[in-house]
Amino acid sequence: MNYGTIATWRMAHDGVIKANELLQNSGSSDDALEITVKSVEDYPFYKSVGFGGLPNAKGILEMDAAFMNGDTFQLGAVAGITDIKNPISVARKLSHEKFNSFLVGQGATDYAIEEGFEEKEMLTERARKIWSNRLDDIKKHNLSAYDGHDTVGVVTLDKQGSMTAGTSSSGLFMKRPGRVGDSPLSGSGFYVDSEIGGASATGLGEDLMKGCLAYEIVRKMKEGLSPQEACDQTLYSFHDLLTKRYGKAGAFSLIAMNNRGQWGVATNVEFTFSVGNQEKEPAIFIANMGNNHSTIIEPISQEWLDAYEKRIKAPIK
Amino acid sequence: MNYGTIATWRMAHDGVIKANELLQNSGSSDDALEITVKSVEDYPFYKSVGFGGLPNAKGILEMDAAFMNGDTFQLGAVAGITDIKNPISVARKLSHEKFNSFLVGQGATDYAIEEGFEEKEMLTERARKIWSNRLDDIKKHNLSAYDGHDTVGVVTLDKQGSMTAGTSSSGLFMKRPGRVGDSPLSGSGFYVDSEIGGASATGLGEDLMKGCLAYEIVRKMKEGLSPQEACDQTLYSFHDLLTKRYGKAGAFSLIAMNNRGQWGVATNVEFTFSVGNQEKEPAIFIANMGNNHSTIIEPISQEWLDAYEKRIKAPIK
Repeated sequence: MNYGTIATWRMAHDGVIKANELLQNSGSSDDALEITVKSVEDYPFYKSVGFGGLPNAKGILEMDAAFMNGDTFQLGAVAGITDIKNPISVARKLSHEKFNSFLVGQGATDYAIEEGFEEKEMLTERARKIWSNRLDDIKKHNLSAYDGHDTVGVVTLDKQGSMTAGTSSSGLFMKRPGRVGDSPLSGSGFYVDSEIGGASATGLGEDLMKGCLAYEIVRKMKEGLSPQEACDQTLYSFHDLLTKRYGKAGAFSLIAMNNRGQWGVATNVEFTFSVGNQEKEPAIFIANMGNNHSTIIEPISQEWLDAYEKRIKAPIK
Repeated sequence: MNYGTIATWRMAHDGVIKANELLQNSGSSDDALEITVKSVEDYPFYKSVGFGGLPNAKGILEMDAAFMNGDTFQLGAVAGITDIKNPISVARKLSHEKFNSFLVGQGATDYAIEEGFEEKEMLTERARKIWSNRLDDIKKHNLSAYDGHDTVGVVTLDKQGSMTAGTSSSGLFMKRPGRVGDSPLSGSGFYVDSEIGGASATGLGEDLMKGCLAYEIVRKMKEGLSPQEACDQTLYSFHDLLTKRYGKAGAFSLIAMNNRGQWGVATNVEFTFSVGNQEKEPAIFIANMGNNHSTIIEPISQEWLDAYEKRIKAPIK
């Protein structure tokens, strides 16, 4: 029986391994999704998701997350939630609500506390220093404030044929308080239908929500395209369209998996991801935009991994 | 040259008349969109949008709005904004931001104040009374708290061929603080591409965001379907899908207009709307679900209008 997990960025890999162990033992796609995202949320050195994530312009760490079940289309989402250990778990709980399934700001945090989700000071000293240094740089060098928006986006398939999609992100570094990206938005940040497949996005949310690409990729898989064909045809034509009509396309990357465990990705920047299914153990790959609306996908090198490890743990002055 | 405006619910009619006057005189689709929505936001007897809108469970009036330009795909949105006279104008302003174009909660309100948008106590005494009575009813009769979610959704086309879509809503009556519906979500609440057409939704946001129907209707129009065919094929098949997979489909209605001023609607409840284009003056219609995925559309009767007028202005004890 088929199963699998695909997730954005190298940071998701440890979670993908755990998820696929669960799936191999007939665990549910919902549980596998949550375990993957929590693994990223909990790790202090990933600075764009959960604990250790970078804060907004006022130094407050606001987080977004979403959870969607592809059997029933039930979905839950939070945006601008603060000091809750696992936003993905709150989104999962909200997906069971018929009303009020998408909560933002203080309302989201209050809900999480009322429902007993673990509270945690999510801003680390390291993240606070990076924020403070960045503020100085912006003043001194007149840099653009906005940088970094690496959402963890995940799609899972279980042996029972159920699929789940979800996201978690601390959003754009130095964002305005209350800013929401694509991550908690259905169709833009994620979409899944267990009878077809699922997709999820990472990148500049402001541009991603102009295209509804996660929905479109699932729709193209419904028409019979492979996940890779669906990703290629959707992402690169939207990149071209946005360049023509809006002037410039921000960075974005999409992942997809269908209900047979086949997968695909497309991206207009250097993009890493982790994927494993019934046929292959989880592995990290690196993707780049190729010619003629194609994607170049290669196994990650040890050199890249070592440099990454060094970079994320480098001392902050 | 073609032009037109279509908008959800009878409440939009006065705004649609103003919009089409502007469009006839070569005004822009952006201005026509804003004028339509503001007309609804400003009117105290429409209890689901702007001034006079019904508050959340804590008695606070939180509003959502979005604005999208179909030439550039620029879009701006707010959710959970409070005590700002015209949320649609804030969303329009945000659509020009490259970053931070979707703001929620206090961040949205702070932005509006900083940018000089008019502040206003938006909760009317009438709305407060309706809220207070409802609280009593819920306690006494064990009623479901949630009722009423009539978003104003609008699509405009100008003589220059530009199109705009937008929404404004105070959301679900008695919602949890921070609840966001489909109205500010691209693809679910609205979508527009000037080279094709636009669409907008009203109804139970929690269910609408499971389907991305506004995006799907625009996509079907791109494939050559008329707005009516696109609405019929999209809405009723999603109604059936959601009934099968989720158990029940909430109430929802969609409007669409293509770039020739042709229009369509579909709905699974009794639904009124206003539309006018280069061929016909704005008029109010009433729509209902027909057989075999079709929509029955009839001119509104004077009797219906009189009863509506009486109902929205009835004294509140």
